[in-house]
Amino acid sequence: MEDLFIIKIGGETINNSETLKTCLKAIAASGQKTILVHGGGKKVTELAQKLQVPQQMVEGRRITSAETLELCTMVYAGLINKNIVTGLSSEKLLAIGLSGADLNCIVAKKRDASVINYGFVGDIVKVNEAIFENFIAGNIVPVVNSISISEESELLNTNADAVAAEIAKAMSANYKTHLIYCFEKNGVLKDIADENSVIEEISKSDFTQMKETKQIADGMIPKLQTAFRALYHGVEEARILKSDALELYFNNGKPGTNIILH
Amino acid sequence: MEDLFIIKIGGETINNSETLKTCLKAIAASGQKTILVHGGGKKVTELAQKLQVPQQMVEGRRITSAETLELCTMVYAGLINKNIVTGLSSEKLLAIGLSGADLNCIVAKKRDASVINYGFVGDIVKVNEAIFENFIAGNIVPVVNSISISEESELLNTNADAVAAEIAKAMSANYKTHLIYCFEKNGVLKDIADENSVIEEISKSDFTQMKETKQIADGMIPKLQTAFRALYHGVEEARILKSDALELYFNNGKPGTNIILH
Repeated sequence: MEDLFIIKIGGETINNSETLKTCLKAIAASGQKTILVHGGGKKVTELAQKLQVPQQMVEGRRITSAETLELCTMVYAGLINKNIVTGLSSEKLLAIGLSGADLNCIVAKKRDASVINYGFVGDIVKVNEAIFENFIAGNIVPVVNSISISEESELLNTNADAVAAEIAKAMSANYKTHLIYCFEKNGVLKDIADENSVIEEISKSDFTQMKETKQIADGMIPKLQTAFRALYHGVEEARILKSDALELYFNNGKPGTNIILH
Repeated sequence: MEDLFIIKIGGETINNSETLKTCLKAIAASGQKTILVHGGGKKVTELAQKLQVPQQMVEGRRITSAETLELCTMVYAGLINKNIVTGLSSEKLLAIGLSGADLNCIVAKKRDASVINYGFVGDIVKVNEAIFENFIAGNIVPVVNSISISEESELLNTNADAVAAEIAKAMSANYKTHLIYCFEKNGVLKDIADENSVIEEISKSDFTQMKETKQIADGMIPKLQTAFRALYHGVEEARILKSDALELYFNNGKPGTNIILH
């Protein structure tokens, strides 16, 4: 089977035009089949502040009112998505921006509101892999944002890490899929204050132990859980690395942290 | 040749959810092959006001600074585009949102700044019709916004009427193309204060005369000029009508104003 790289880039990569360029150059230079997934929550927070739309985060997820959903749609599906598409075009790659609503490619279910009402937040129920398949077969890079669509044709705000993982899972039937989370640190760190303390490999049992000793916490826990689930469902590789290290990764270096089941 | 309807909807249609729904229902009910083009300038103006980004219009075109381009990209390619895509999804149509940057489908040239510096405003130089062709062949409705891409991979703000006309022209080689401008009035009016004074047909010579007598002015002049150019380049029909009249149009009524060369 052919390799397919599902690369998720976050706010730190997106907000720094140099880092973004480095990332996109590495993808173009690799010549590999790629699906790019992006978030961009920091830009939403900035815009919400300017517009005085109050924001509330619960366990790293944004409580999404109708007004906040509009901001998310503007920033994710509009501003950031088109900037990445043009960035890839600069690197002579043909790209298409996709929200989950486009061609209904990512269908989500509004999160149950009985415990915490997250508003217009969705959890993915279906990735229409044939759509991605078609674009990839035509050497087109899908640039996917984290706005999805419900069965009732509502827009929903979705977690970008989960979008990447679900696409990777769905594509695993026909490709050797590599799920790559790019972020601002060198990898998962033993000591959060020391960038040189990268843990090269984390297994499921390491993870359980690290959670107990509180060596990892906050946003890293759901990220790792998402990665484990992806591996469990047929994804070949899951890795967390610094955005700048993407070129090294494609040149068979082993930057960052490799996530493994056993 | 098969018929293809290129339907442009403006701010009045977009900002009124009922009118938009009526429009999208009419398209779905028609069962015709359609490309939808939208603007949405009023929403940009609103957002710019809230964010205190000063706006300046010259001859109906928005002077587009880098900051204003960001707002346009957010509103056109994000908010409005995805709302239309989900609206079509509600009507059981498969739709894909496209800016000109996606797959480089609409390439524009930055307008010459020697007389008036419009900033990031573009005039279309190329429509990649094969892209639209592929989607239409798959019974997919392209929903196209007015953000285009330059040869240098910059985003540019483009006039939505022109986007619709250029797509119609480009598709005329393989389809009988119908260019339909939906707007807030019943058609081109003899007396702007009287909604019942619709002019049923305007030829090029009528137009020349009406300009001289100042019977038409402002935004209607470039709209009509765009329609005449489209007809001149092989477009089968150009018509200006009220958004609500789209259903009547598809049922072989003749609402609004028919634009003809002779």
